[in-house]
Amino acid sequence: MSIKDTWTLAGKDYGSRLIVGTGKYKDFEETAAAVEASGAEIVTVAVRRVNVSDPNQPMLVDYLDPKKITYLPNTAGCFDADSAVRTLRLAREAGGWDLVKLEVLGDQKTLYPNMPATFEAAESLIKDGFKVMVYCNDDPIAAKQLEDMGCVAIMPLGAPIGSGLGIQNPVHIRLIVEQTSVPVLVDAGVGTASDAAAGMELGCEGILMNTAIAEAKDPILMASAMKHAVWAGRQAYLAGRMPKKLYADPSSPLSGLI
Amino acid sequence: MSIKDTWTLAGKDYGSRLIVGTGKYKDFEETAAAVEASGAEIVTVAVRRVNVSDPNQPMLVDYLDPKKITYLPNTAGCFDADSAVRTLRLAREAGGWDLVKLEVLGDQKTLYPNMPATFEAAESLIKDGFKVMVYCNDDPIAAKQLEDMGCVAIMPLGAPIGSGLGIQNPVHIRLIVEQTSVPVLVDAGVGTASDAAAGMELGCEGILMNTAIAEAKDPILMASAMKHAVWAGRQAYLAGRMPKKLYADPSSPLSGLI
Amino acid sequence: MSIKDTWTLAGKDYGSRLIVGTGKYKDFEETAAAVEASGAEIVTVAVRRVNVSDPNQPMLVDYLDPKKITYLPNTAGCFDADSAVRTLRLAREAGGWDLVKLEVLGDQKTLYPNMPATFEAAESLIKDGFKVMVYCNDDPIAAKQLEDMGCVAIMPLGAPIGSGLGIQNPVHIRLIVEQTSVPVLVDAGVGTASDAAAGMELGCEGILMNTAIAEAKDPILMASAMKHAVWAGRQAYLAGRMPKKLYADPSSPLSGLI
Amino acid sequence: MSIKDTWTLAGKDYGSRLIVGTGKYKDFEETAAAVEASGAEIVTVAVRRVNVSDPNQPMLVDYLDPKKITYLPNTAGCFDADSAVRTLRLAREAGGWDLVKLEVLGDQKTLYPNMPATFEAAESLIKDGFKVMVYCNDDPIAAKQLEDMGCVAIMPLGAPIGSGLGIQNPVHIRLIVEQTSVPVLVDAGVGTASDAAAGMELGCEGILMNTAIAEAKDPILMASAMKHAVWAGRQAYLAGRMPKKLYADPSSPLSGLI
Repeated sequence: MSIKDTWTLAGKDYGSRLIVGTGKYKDFEETAAAVEASGAEIVTVAVRRVNVSDPNQPMLVDYLDPKKITYLPNTAGCFDADSAVRTLRLAREAGGWDLVKLEVLGDQKTLYPNMPATFEAAESLIKDGFKVMVYCNDDPIAAKQLEDMGCVAIMPLGAPIGSGLGIQNPVHIRLIVEQTSVPVLVDAGVGTASDAAAGMELGCEGILMNTAIAEAKDPILMASAMKHAVWAGRQAYLAGRMPKKLYADPSSPLSGLI
Repeated sequence: MSIKDTWTLAGKDYGSRLIVGTGKYKDFEETAAAVEASGAEIVTVAVRRVNVSDPNQPMLVDYLDPKKITYLPNTAGCFDADSAVRTLRLAREAGGWDLVKLEVLGDQKTLYPNMPATFEAAESLIKDGFKVMVYCNDDPIAAKQLEDMGCVAIMPLGAPIGSGLGIQNPVHIRLIVEQTSVPVLVDAGVGTASDAAAGMELGCEGILMNTAIAEAKDPILMASAMKHAVWAGRQAYLAGRMPKKLYADPSSPLSGLI
Repeated sequence: MSIKDTWTLAGKDYGSRLIVGTGKYKDFEETAAAVEASGAEIVTVAVRRVNVSDPNQPMLVDYLDPKKITYLPNTAGCFDADSAVRTLRLAREAGGWDLVKLEVLGDQKTLYPNMPATFEAAESLIKDGFKVMVYCNDDPIAAKQLEDMGCVAIMPLGAPIGSGLGIQNPVHIRLIVEQTSVPVLVDAGVGTASDAAAGMELGCEGILMNTAIAEAKDPILMASAMKHAVWAGRQAYLAGRMPKKLYADPSSPLSGLI
Repeated sequence: MSIKDTWTLAGKDYGSRLIVGTGKYKDFEETAAAVEASGAEIVTVAVRRVNVSDPNQPMLVDYLDPKKITYLPNTAGCFDADSAVRTLRLAREAGGWDLVKLEVLGDQKTLYPNMPATFEAAESLIKDGFKVMVYCNDDPIAAKQLEDMGCVAIMPLGAPIGSGLGIQNPVHIRLIVEQTSVPVLVDAGVGTASDAAAGMELGCEGILMNTAIAEAKDPILMASAMKHAVWAGRQAYLAGRMPKKLYADPSSPLSGLI
C-alpha cells in the first residue's frame, strides 16, 4: 500500500497491525522466525512462563531484540486480580515495561476473562501508572466501561483462546469498534487467514494471535499468511467494499448488448 | 513467500493466482491501474464489449500490454452456444487468442451458466482447437464431465456474478477441488478480501473477480487488498491450519502453572 | 394453524408438507412408526431395494397402507438414465404408480445428480406418461429447464444426501422458489429440526428427508420434531418475519420512558 | 410428543418452553390472542409501561388471567441498579409477584445489559427475597457468577433486543448450558422460527421473545409458528441428531446394490 497507514498505541506509531504471542513454539529459534515472518512489531510475553530475566537459561531477548520489537508482558495463567497485578509489577521491575496486556481468566476450560476481576485489576494497574491493554469479553457495555476507566486498548475475544473457531460474533466486535476511541484489537479465536482478514474488515485496529500460527503445520509460512491477511483486511476496510446484492449483474456493462 | 509457488495453466506458469476482469471501470486508465495494483498476470476481456481491434477508438491493448499480461477473451453476454462459439472464433481471428474463457449464460437476472449449452459450446470449441476455461455452476458432477471433455480449467461460481455475497457453498467448491486435475478457479461472487482468502483456503488454484474490485469505493486499493488476500489464503492453505476446537486451551503451555 | 393450508401435487391436495424416505430403519415396524410420528402423507420408496411385491417376504405395504399414504417410487441406486427409466417402468407395472421421484446419480461419494442423464431420463419418462418429480442440483437455470420440460415437482438438493449439513446455499433455493410454478421441495441435506424450518422459511412447498430421521438416536421422536419444524417454518413464512436490524430497539415502546 | 416433558422454574412445573413479552402489540386483544396462539404459560410484563394496577385504564389482567398465566414483571427501561430494584419492589407490592425478570440496561442503542449494575441489583433483590431471573450477556463466566449468587434462571442474550438477527454466538450459549444447573433461557435476538428451533437444539430450557412475534406481519400466526418451533427444537435436542458428514451416503443401504 503506497499510502501511509500506521496506528498509534500509547503514543507510539506502528506499521504492523498484527500482534503475535510467543508461546507454544518448539524453541526460541522458531519463535523468532515466526515473529519475523509475521512482520509483527509487538509481541506478547507470558512473563510467568517465558524466561526474560534468568541469564543462565535461554532468554527470549536473545532471539527477539526488545529494542526493535515492543514486548508486551501479559498475565496468562492469572485467575484473580491480585496475581495479575503482582505479575505485572514484577515484570515492570524486571524489564521496565509499563505497557502491559492484562488478562484475568475465569476458568481453565475456556480461558474466558473474569470480568469483575478484570475491572478490579485494571483499576489498580492504571492507578499504579501502567498503560493497560485489556483482554475482555465481546460485550460493548463492558468495553465502554474499560475505555472510560482509562485502558489504552480494548482487546475483545473473537472466540475461545486457542479454539481457532474464527470471530464468533461480528456484530459485537463491530459495535465495540464503532463506539471506541482507543485501539480495538481482536484477541483470541482466529484460526486461519480469512478469519484475520474478516476481523480487520470490521474496522479493528489490529489483531492478536498465537495458536493459529504456532499450531499450524508450518508456523513460519502461516505467520506470513497472517501478515498478508491483516494487510488484505485492512486495505479492504479502507477501500470500502461493494454492496452485497441478491441478484447478479454482469461484470461488464450490459448497455452494449442491444 | 520465499518458496516458489507457481501454477500452470495450459502449459504456462504464473506467479499470481488472482485473475481480474476488465469491465466496469470508469476508463482504461483506471482499469490498468487496478490490474497493476492487483498483481494479476491474466485478465479477462469481454470481446463483445471491450475494444481490442478498432484503432480509431481507445484500445485496451494500449493500456495493458498483451506481451506482459495474458488476455483471456470471454463470452460475457452470450446466452446460447452458437453466439459463444462465434464470439471466440472472431476473437481468435482478431488477436490470435486460443486460450479462452467460455461462459454461456442462462438468464439476465442471475447470469448463471446454462449448463447444457455450456457443454455444447465447450465440445465444439475443444474440437476447434481452443483451450477452454469454463465458467460453470458449482456442481461436482458437471465439473468432472467438463474436465473429462478436455477443458483446461474449471471455473465454478462462488455466488451470482456481481453479487459480492462471498462463496455460498464451500462444500461444493471443496468437492470439486478434491477431484479435479486441471486448475480450479473460483469465478464470480467474491465481495471482499476475506472472501478471496477463504476461497484460496479451500485449495483452489486461483480466483477470478471483477465487480469486487471495480465497484469498491477505492478500486485501486481494493485491488491491492485482493492481491494480499489471495496470497494470504494460498499460504494458509499450504501452511496447514490448526484444528478447530470447541474449548480453549491456553496460548502458552499450562505445564508451568503448578 | 386454523387457516387451511394445503398444497397440490399432480392434482391431489396434501396437508402435510413433510415427505419422508423409508430406508435405513431397522425394520418395517420402525419405518411405520416414524412415518406416523412425522405426519407424512407421502413416502418415497427405493423400488430396487424395498420389497413391495414379493409376498413371501415382509412387505412395506403391510405396514404403511398405500390407500392412506401416497407411495412415491424412486430410483435410488440408478447411475444412468436407462436404469432409472427401466426401474420406474417396473414399478408402474408392479404397483400402478405413475407419480414418481426420479434420481439419476452422478457418483457414489456424493450421490449428487448427473444432470445430463437426469434430463434424458425425465424427457423419456414424461413422454411415457409418468408424472415426474425430479431430484436435481440447486441450479436455478437447470430447475427452469426441468419445469419447462414438464416435471411436476422440482426437488433441489440442500446438501449431499445423508450429510446432515443443512441447506448449504439458501440463495440458490430462494432463486428457484421465486421462479417456479410447480412445487419446489428441498430434497436431501437436512440434519436437524432448525434446518427443516429454515428450508420452509425460504418458501418451499415442502421438504423430503430420510437420514435425519432414521439416523437420529430416537428416530420416532425426531420424526415428531420434523413435523413441528416443517409447520413452524411454513407458518413463519406465511406470517412474514420481522426485518433484521443491526441495532436493538426495546421490546416495549420507549415513549413511556420520559 | 407422548413423553412427559416439563421443566421447573422456581419450584413450579411448566409444559410450554416459550415465554413471550407483552409489549409492542397494537392493543391488549392482540396481545392476548398472540399469547394464546403461542401456548405460553409465562409472560413478561414491563411494569413501568404496562398498566397492571390502574382500574380506570384498560388492564392487561383483564385479557390475560394471572391465575392461568404466570406474570413475570421485568425492569425494561431501567438503566441503573437502583431503579430496577425499586421497580420490582413496587411490582411486588402491587401484584404480589416475587418471581421477576431483572434487566439493567447499558445503553439505549443496543439495550445490552450493564453487567456490574446487574450483579449489584441481583444481589440486592435476592437478599430481599426475590426469585431473580436475570437477563445477561452471553459470557459463561458471568453466567456462572450469577448462578452462584442465587439467580433462579440465566437468560443470556442471543442478539441485540429487537434485532431479529438470530443467535449470534451458539458456542457461548452452549458453554453456558453445559455448566448451569438452573434453567437457561435464551432472551432476545430471535427473528424467526428456525432461530427458535436452533436455540432449543443447543439444549436451553426455553426461549423468551417479543419483537419476533409482535412485529411479524401476522403476529398471531407467527406466535403459532414459534410454538411449533420451540417444540421442534426441543424434540430434536432430545432425539439426538444424526452426525454431520462431509460426504453423502445413500438414504437406503447400499448393500443391495451389488
